[in-house]
Amino acid sequence: MTNENRTHEIVSNIIDTYGKYPRTSRIDEENMLNKEIIIEVAEKVRSVLFPGFFEKRKVRSENVQYLVGEHVEFIQYHLRKQVAKAIGSDGSGRGLSWQEIESKTEEIVDEFLSCLPRIREYLSTDVEALLNGDPAASSTDEIIFSYPGLYAVTIFRIAHELYLLKVPMIPRIMTEHAHSITGIDINPGATIGKYFFIDHGTGIVIGETTEIGENVKLYQGVTLGALSTRKGQQLRGTKRHPTIEDNVTIYSNTSILGGETVIGKGAIIGGNAFIVESIPPGVRVSIKNPELEYSGHENLSLDGEDNKEWSDWEI
Amino acid sequence: MTNENRTHEIVSNIIDTYGKYPRTSRIDEENMLNKEIIIEVAEKVRSVLFPGFFEKRKVRSENVQYLVGEHVEFIQYHLRKQVAKAIGSDGSGRGLSWQEIESKTEEIVDEFLSCLPRIREYLSTDVEALLNGDPAASSTDEIIFSYPGLYAVTIFRIAHELYLLKVPMIPRIMTEHAHSITGIDINPGATIGKYFFIDHGTGIVIGETTEIGENVKLYQGVTLGALSTRKGQQLRGTKRHPTIEDNVTIYSNTSILGGETVIGKGAIIGGNAFIVESIPPGVRVSIKNPELEYSGHENLSLDGEDNKEWSDWEI
Amino acid sequence: MTNENRTHEIVSNIIDTYGKYPRTSRIDEENMLNKEIIIEVAEKVRSVLFPGFFEKRKVRSENVQYLVGEHVEFIQYHLRKQVAKAIGSDGSGRGLSWQEIESKTEEIVDEFLSCLPRIREYLSTDVEALLNGDPAASSTDEIIFSYPGLYAVTIFRIAHELYLLKVPMIPRIMTEHAHSITGIDINPGATIGKYFFIDHGTGIVIGETTEIGENVKLYQGVTLGALSTRKGQQLRGTKRHPTIEDNVTIYSNTSILGGETVIGKGAIIGGNAFIVESIPPGVRVSIKNPELEYSGHENLSLDGEDNKEWSDWEI
Repeated sequence: MTNENRTHEIVSNIIDTYGKYPRTSRIDEENMLNKEIIIEVAEKVRSVLFPGFFEKRKVRSENVQYLVGEHVEFIQYHLRKQVAKAIGSDGSGRGLSWQEIESKTEEIVDEFLSCLPRIREYLSTDVEALLNGDPAASSTDEIIFSYPGLYAVTIFRIAHELYLLKVPMIPRIMTEHAHSITGIDINPGATIGKYFFIDHGTGIVIGETTEIGENVKLYQGVTLGALSTRKGQQLRGTKRHPTIEDNVTIYSNTSILGGETVIGKGAIIGGNAFIVESIPPGVRVSIKNPELEYSGHENLSLDGEDNKEWSDWEI
Repeated sequence: MTNENRTHEIVSNIIDTYGKYPRTSRIDEENMLNKEIIIEVAEKVRSVLFPGFFEKRKVRSENVQYLVGEHVEFIQYHLRKQVAKAIGSDGSGRGLSWQEIESKTEEIVDEFLSCLPRIREYLSTDVEALLNGDPAASSTDEIIFSYPGLYAVTIFRIAHELYLLKVPMIPRIMTEHAHSITGIDINPGATIGKYFFIDHGTGIVIGETTEIGENVKLYQGVTLGALSTRKGQQLRGTKRHPTIEDNVTIYSNTSILGGETVIGKGAIIGGNAFIVESIPPGVRVSIKNPELEYSGHENLSLDGEDNKEWSDWEI
Repeated sequence: MTNENRTHEIVSNIIDTYGKYPRTSRIDEENMLNKEIIIEVAEKVRSVLFPGFFEKRKVRSENVQYLVGEHVEFIQYHLRKQVAKAIGSDGSGRGLSWQEIESKTEEIVDEFLSCLPRIREYLSTDVEALLNGDPAASSTDEIIFSYPGLYAVTIFRIAHELYLLKVPMIPRIMTEHAHSITGIDINPGATIGKYFFIDHGTGIVIGETTEIGENVKLYQGVTLGALSTRKGQQLRGTKRHPTIEDNVTIYSNTSILGGETVIGKGAIIGGNAFIVESIPPGVRVSIKNPELEYSGHENLSLDGEDNKEWSDWEI
């Protein structure tokens, strides 16, 4: 077979599968959302929320209104287009004319933009919590400029407003972008109060129906998850994730699971714990120091000639 | 010393080390692989596997064959070049003429492209598993568009075919790229059946010789690892990682270790467990609820004036 | 209200918050650091440290001095500018004239560049440790080209020198970039000896005052952390993180906490452990195999019609 024929056959075989597995192909359907633009919109919002931090040029009192105006206009234009696509490709736009969708999206985006002052208020409390809680932090500038916890919370707070406005797909695209950058996975449906503190953060998972009060601290690897998801789509919409009240601290790699699990005000949960029941307010909980086994060894050889026991023991 | 002299000295001192540590320098050697191109190839393959999802333009029945043809041609051209380099810089091309390497790489790349229909079949089952298993998922579009678990599995399935074709370096570069994006580390050597479900995913590690059946679910932080790697290169090629049979579910942050460890069909393994022995089919296993220690506290002061015990206790 | 008026109001409301939360706005202040340039500088340094690996063109004995010279000049020019900004926006430049800052930054950057030969020496030992310790590694090229552990350690070793030279902000920006790429969070203040081995790596946290000897191995999810950070900024500068002596291995997901905790020479710490006290040299420690609970089940139904107990049990 010639090269051209072989390639032609390869292409035909691939295209044959497009009809066969229709859920994983979008032929003759409307354009998908533009992920790059959605992330660019989120970053522009972040620029507006932290003015002067992420701009190439110096922001001055004299130009700040033009700069913000320019960003807001960019956000309006592109976010409207993406929201319209998201609504159009989703059930929620069914039966609406394009004009109706257009006016609906204008409303949604303006509603969203009206929330920015409140998001700024929340974020300024988050920055304060990070400065107060982390001895390694040298300034608020450093936190805003380089802390992954603040990045993830910023994108979450933006996406959460769009989630509340029932925008399909876009909120999750934003938080998954932050997840990719930070390793922190906050579902846009979660509710999170002021002064939220995340340190290090890699591996944190906060589920869709989690409720978190004010002044809560989470360390790396904490899961706020569901007790069981085996019922899959049947559980959609039910409260599956825990409630964390004000002033709770949860140390690293602890999992707290279940929609009826409530961690009471001011409780402190130690690291590596596994909690599936409610904890009363003001209590400290830790795993009973798990017994450790010790054994001496002399032959820390590097030649790999260890006996079987030895290598069985290691993990 | 003048500026120029100082800089000159700095440069000389650096270059002096190039001969001293030869394994970490490539002077007068062939060009290395082009990581950006390899990742672009992987992304193009992903575009072909999910037609219409990651294209800027709308994909129509009328243009789909040109579009796929264009992508396939791109993949052929660039992947051949990279595979040739990989083989050339590795022992496997030793003694071959450039013509022989060229024809070998053509064969490898065409073989790889012939697998795409089968990969599409597998991926359509993975998407279904994600939709059925995750109450937070609203549509297959959302899953394909934003779920890190699907991204990691897609790149793994692509890289795995190249691994089976004994292409050096390139499969690992692809899966490490997915690892970087998702926090999910799947070695391209692993064997993974249909309907594979990964939720959240950050921190998952699946070792090179792991075997996973159909309809398996893994949550964040699960390690399928080796019992001991202290023997290092001596273990190369041996089965060091566990076997997970069909319909097994493994909840978050559990580690399962060892090449002889088999998790039997339909077993369900709870979270935070640490398993180094085989588990029979149909069994559910969980860590015996580890005892928790409770203690009340009144003084949740923020002034830091806690006594020593208190701060010792926290973690 | 017209569109223009509505937008105008939105913009005004946002700008009103800029004075209200001044710590999260930088109006009429000097330009911030340029994160992209800082990361580009770090990558250029990495290119110099691994010559021929990350270049588009082939590196030959005849051109190597020009290439390195070009890179060094780039690093000098851009790093000086960023260091000057960092010092200027931080307390440390207070009272200095621009000429004084300029000469200080020249000194710092040249001092930094003089460390590169030593960093190369350290990195060549790290590569060797990775090759010897990982049965899945096929060559040093593969390690340098695609291992996230080596990437994180490379960026750490670069950032650490800038940290020692008391450069504000920039070291952390570099290590947070590596954290984002790899999921490995090494504070630039940590001290890490030769032959450092990190496998997989996602979720590793190494705190600011950690001290690590030579030939130490860490697996994914290991935290070397502080016992308590509730005293926040009051703890700044104190030793809060553990000391890990030579030849220690720490398996996955283990946390070792506290500034007075010392893991003695040659100790081996099993996975999933939680250590807040010192471990004597030469000892192996593992969690006493936590009891597992088993129970049979027949009805691995997929219909979700499980009774309450069943779904309570799962996690």
